[in-house]
Amino acid sequence: MDIAALLTSAGINIALCVLLFTLYSVLRKQPSNRIVYFGRRLASVQLRSNDPFSLERFVPSTSWLIKAWETTEDEILTVGGLDAVVFQRILIFSIRIFSIAAVICMFLVLPVNYYGKEMAHKRLGAESLDVFTIGNVQEGSVWLWAHCLALYTISCTTCALLYFLTIGPFIQEYKSITKMRLTHLRGSPTNSSHFTVLVRSIPFVPGESYSHTLKKFFTTYYPSNYLAHQMVHHSGVVQKLMDEAEKMCKMLSAVSSDGRSLKPFCFCTSSTLSFHILSDQPESGDESIRYSDFEIAPPDNVRILTLHAPVLECPVAFVFFKTRFAAVVATQMLQTTNPMLWVTEQAPEPHDVLWSSLSIPYKQLWLRKIATLLAAIVFMFLFLVPVTFVQGLTQLDKLSKTFPFLRGLLKKDYINHVVTGYLPSVILTLSLYTVPPTMMLFSAIEAPISRSGRKKSACLNVFFVNVLSGSVISQLSVFSSVRDIPLELAKAIPTQASFFMTYVFTSGWTGLACELMQLFTFVCNLVKKFILRNYEDAHDWLMAFPYHTEVPRVLLFVLIGFSCSIMAPLILPFLLFYFFMAYLIYKNQILNVYLKKYDSGGLFWPIVHNTTVFSLVLTQIIALGVFGIKDSPVASGFTIPLIVCTLLFSEYCRQRFQPVFKKPAAQVLIDMDREDENGDRFEDIYNRLRTAYCQIQLTSHELRPGLAVTRVNDVAETIPCSGGPKPGSFL
Amino acid sequence: MDIAALLTSAGINIALCVLLFTLYSVLRKQPSNRIVYFGRRLASVQLRSNDPFSLERFVPSTSWLIKAWETTEDEILTVGGLDAVVFQRILIFSIRIFSIAAVICMFLVLPVNYYGKEMAHKRLGAESLDVFTIGNVQEGSVWLWAHCLALYTISCTTCALLYFLTIGPFIQEYKSITKMRLTHLRGSPTNSSHFTVLVRSIPFVPGESYSHTLKKFFTTYYPSNYLAHQMVHHSGVVQKLMDEAEKMCKMLSAVSSDGRSLKPFCFCTSSTLSFHILSDQPESGDESIRYSDFEIAPPDNVRILTLHAPVLECPVAFVFFKTRFAAVVATQMLQTTNPMLWVTEQAPEPHDVLWSSLSIPYKQLWLRKIATLLAAIVFMFLFLVPVTFVQGLTQLDKLSKTFPFLRGLLKKDYINHVVTGYLPSVILTLSLYTVPPTMMLFSAIEAPISRSGRKKSACLNVFFVNVLSGSVISQLSVFSSVRDIPLELAKAIPTQASFFMTYVFTSGWTGLACELMQLFTFVCNLVKKFILRNYEDAHDWLMAFPYHTEVPRVLLFVLIGFSCSIMAPLILPFLLFYFFMAYLIYKNQILNVYLKKYDSGGLFWPIVHNTTVFSLVLTQIIALGVFGIKDSPVASGFTIPLIVCTLLFSEYCRQRFQPVFKKPAAQVLIDMDREDENGDRFEDIYNRLRTAYCQIQLTSHELRPGLAVTRVNDVAETIPCSGGPKPGSFL
Repeated sequence: MDIAALLTSAGINIALCVLLFTLYSVLRKQPSNRIVYFGRRLASVQLRSNDPFSLERFVPSTSWLIKAWETTEDEILTVGGLDAVVFQRILIFSIRIFSIAAVICMFLVLPVNYYGKEMAHKRLGAESLDVFTIGNVQEGSVWLWAHCLALYTISCTTCALLYFLTIGPFIQEYKSITKMRLTHLRGSPTNSSHFTVLVRSIPFVPGESYSHTLKKFFTTYYPSNYLAHQMVHHSGVVQKLMDEAEKMCKMLSAVSSDGRSLKPFCFCTSSTLSFHILSDQPESGDESIRYSDFEIAPPDNVRILTLHAPVLECPVAFVFFKTRFAAVVATQMLQTTNPMLWVTEQAPEPHDVLWSSLSIPYKQLWLRKIATLLAAIVFMFLFLVPVTFVQGLTQLDKLSKTFPFLRGLLKKDYINHVVTGYLPSVILTLSLYTVPPTMMLFSAIEAPISRSGRKKSACLNVFFVNVLSGSVISQLSVFSSVRDIPLELAKAIPTQASFFMTYVFTSGWTGLACELMQLFTFVCNLVKKFILRNYEDAHDWLMAFPYHTEVPRVLLFVLIGFSCSIMAPLILPFLLFYFFMAYLIYKNQILNVYLKKYDSGGLFWPIVHNTTVFSLVLTQIIALGVFGIKDSPVASGFTIPLIVCTLLFSEYCRQRFQPVFKKPAAQVLIDMDREDENGDRFEDIYNRLRTAYCQIQLTSHELRPGLAVTRVNDVAETIPCSGGPKPGSFL
Repeated sequence: MDIAALLTSAGINIALCVLLFTLYSVLRKQPSNRIVYFGRRLASVQLRSNDPFSLERFVPSTSWLIKAWETTEDEILTVGGLDAVVFQRILIFSIRIFSIAAVICMFLVLPVNYYGKEMAHKRLGAESLDVFTIGNVQEGSVWLWAHCLALYTISCTTCALLYFLTIGPFIQEYKSITKMRLTHLRGSPTNSSHFTVLVRSIPFVPGESYSHTLKKFFTTYYPSNYLAHQMVHHSGVVQKLMDEAEKMCKMLSAVSSDGRSLKPFCFCTSSTLSFHILSDQPESGDESIRYSDFEIAPPDNVRILTLHAPVLECPVAFVFFKTRFAAVVATQMLQTTNPMLWVTEQAPEPHDVLWSSLSIPYKQLWLRKIATLLAAIVFMFLFLVPVTFVQGLTQLDKLSKTFPFLRGLLKKDYINHVVTGYLPSVILTLSLYTVPPTMMLFSAIEAPISRSGRKKSACLNVFFVNVLSGSVISQLSVFSSVRDIPLELAKAIPTQASFFMTYVFTSGWTGLACELMQLFTFVCNLVKKFILRNYEDAHDWLMAFPYHTEVPRVLLFVLIGFSCSIMAPLILPFLLFYFFMAYLIYKNQILNVYLKKYDSGGLFWPIVHNTTVFSLVLTQIIALGVFGIKDSPVASGFTIPLIVCTLLFSEYCRQRFQPVFKKPAAQVLIDMDREDENGDRFEDIYNRLRTAYCQIQLTSHELRPGLAVTRVNDVAETIPCSGGPKPGSFL
């Protein structure tokens, strides 16, 4: 590929980006698109319903970019939670590291590459991109020390930045991620999940319900700390009961002339019988209506839905403890001598719970994990088909040999540029879009207990499938000798550099513009409003931030950046521009579009840390191979200690930081417990705890805090669901 | 190698064994050798000092074998602890599995091998051993199903036996190792280590001693469960103070005409001033003698040794808790947000503590672990030198080509038999004897906190160095392709079968006889008694059972047995005989020779379990390779699901059993705590706890329970050492 083809690709993508950005800046001002571009804001505050028509609405502007630039990290923390801040940190980290890499590589490595061989350079436009890569350097050249120096600088800066970002003892103490995570733990004292333990695999005792067995166990072994528990029910059964209840409601409201006194006790998911007619006034008398398995008894301003049949229970429950410390103790201990029974783990946040996974028997989980792993590997190999095709396109001479009938077409300059420069990355980008949904499906097989856990698990899989199948493995015969891997990689990367560059344009730049435009939601909205003529904003469209697709994408660009930095430094300015745009655009999206439904507390930071170190080591190994090919024993010799030091650094970080992301610290928990005890806040927390976990899947606008949530409770532990919707709240 | 060479080797080894066994049966009856052959018994009971001279003493007998045979597992448990029982279980397991393997392989596989090719068989003596291996089977033979069937039988039996041995739900419920481990936990209610937590990496607070910082931390965060603590001091300093104290004692006893009132307060390790003149009567008055850093104050029947200088403290301490549950909670929790500070772990048993490791900073440990791993790998490669030499010997034609001057010598039949049949295994056995001490040295670099931990860590390293360097790796080019490993192994194993057989004779049979004879101790004793004329029995010779050498040795034989079983089944009867003899001889040694100084509670069972599964999978992979060489796609096809199932079985066991060996179960601990609370035993336990951990290295006969042990205590937590030697106790 030559410069012209690269410029063609860049041109197409820049044109697309400008078009999409302009469209966005206009469309976002149209009231009908508010649900698409301001979903999060709509959900949290009441916006003016109708703007007056003005010409200003149709003038493209950059105000949103300025707004995003001005947003501080504290605002992001409030709006998007710690996860969003950590995601922003990854981008800031990338910008920093690649600024430094760009400076050293553009001014030191690039000239060395360009003048590496004694040759007559063509005019710049017709110059092959290969002259800018390390491939152009003479074998045994003394100038390879420049590459070695650049590698050292990049490695050291990365390690230092990673370390300070995680621990931050000197430059940004209060902003380091470990500190933020702890502040996050401290800062949300009413987080119900801190007091809650998920107990799985409750043993079956003949003649006793699971609930009874559980209560007996915890009152025996944790008598002073056990507060209450809530059984999990088979979701299918719950849904069936809900439907029956809905029927009953309809029947009752049809019978009763004045439906007001009955409707408050109906628990329905249908939109026709929603909560908007709930009233706050206490009901008089002891009305108790029995129907099928239900008992609905409203004593005073409290609605209870009681389930009598113990057959509906799963051997799974949420157990509430009196202190955070006691809850963590229960999760850390092995309960009985059979590790497959009474399995305890920290409960996820209420809205983070994946209820459907909970009914899956615990004994299956290890098998499911293995199945997921195997499925991901099989998928990776299937993925080699499009990848091989794509990488064939970049080598045009091969292509015209394989398909002779294309030879005439490919001789045209413009077609040639498009086919080599633009098409491959588009095909790869499109096929990579299938990876995240597939991995989410596989993660669902694994039956994680929380949505954030599912995303976290998918995140790593997506990254590795992308890396292994998308860019690297196709160049290698998989089972070739271990010793030759550096050499194989070293041969592959410089020749693929031009492909990576176009991939940055397509998947990076245009991908960002598509993310901003929210094409799918936008089209759906269009269809709904202008074809179906339904002008109501559907809040169930609102999504949480898709960390499982965006984090691996950014990490993939970090990997590409590292591995190309000293091989083909021309990529760095484009990549840097991508990271900068990503920083602004994701900030905008977090502020306006995505809802914060739950917060894992930055739990995917270890993944980022590890994959960054992986990328760095991979780069060093590739460099080792290249130095080997280039007959530079000195440079190779200097690279080996660098690899060792990077691995030692990684191991040190694993020792130093990993435990904080796995277990909460006793000191922090005990301090928080004491603060609450001194402030007499426990009673309040306990009350909230009893209504926190709700198995019935409500639609998204019913999930907002402050709305009453009614639950399927257990007979033994009937916990009143108190509180109704606050008058005057949104909707 | 032919049958005759094999018989030569067998003959030499059998002769050696018979000689050593006869010698043993005579020597053990001589009173002068009692310390060598009855060390454990001498330490526990007072034997008659002088037997009358009788002729019976010089007649070889087999009574010891019968005695060993008749000893029950319960006796072994009492005498040698759970570790000894687990070791016996490994042998019983091996006998069972190889009995079954021997039956099926000798009657099914061996005939198939022998008649595998149409050939004229020579007379049995001159027959090459190769005709008994799978190498003799025709390519594409249908008879390979016999090997496949044998492989299936062996694999299934092994998995079933392993499972039942570990869990034992049906056939031997109360005898399974998991159960035994729990019974062991329950059965020793006064085990001080259950109440004790080792705290490392106590942070340094300027102006405060570590002891003070620690007390503050634990009284703040574990106020209701913290009992007391004991600082660890730099061992060099402690030794220096001991020496000074000894000097002081000598000085004082020289001044005082009547030494009796002073000597009780002297704490010396020298044999001249030992405890035998201690008296039990209470001392009158408040005698307090100050000397250097010491304060010796005996209020009433209590001797206190107080250390004033806080500079001597390490940032390490034993913290005692009021209940077992609280102690385990403290070990399971992450204490603070910095995982490198306040590191807690379950304390080892008092006599198991490796005090010298405790003063090593915790931050170094991860580096030390990496260093150990690297050292073991380097050692393994160094070990290839003798191994290559040895394996050259078995191929005599190669040898006579390399050293032409030997050709004349090697033509002699007898020399030929000795060189090919006997010499290689002797050289290998001797060089393998260097592995355990080296690995113990490496384990010491790793700074484990307990002796049993050091042995456990060495155990696995010894096994892998033996396997990788001793028998397998030399046949492979290390970096050869992953895909070819089964093939390479398949080629190597059958040709090396004859070598493995002689190895069983030498290292197995003769090794056992040497173990029985205790050659080293015997010679030392001889020199001492008949040259140095010192007739006193030295109790410091008594050793704990060397699990780190014996467990890997047995496991290595299990691996050899598995991998040879279907390849060269002729080895099985010899191996079976080895296991049977080992069962009797180790029983005898545990009963008579080795002292039970500490008990890890069967903690090395997971190593045994994992290495057995490793051996089994390796065997299956080799079989896969062999079936591939022999052009039998059906047999290969049947082997692959077997490998998958074995790996799944291993993973299931990891899920099901591993946690029990890592963490104690809350239920068990709480039940034990409650029992003690109801029985009012806590006060007694607390008193014992205060004197349990003693940093001063006493000689072995002072370590026996019941003897007073005086300790270097901390100012903040001066714990009286109560109790003196009971009158009339041994010595």
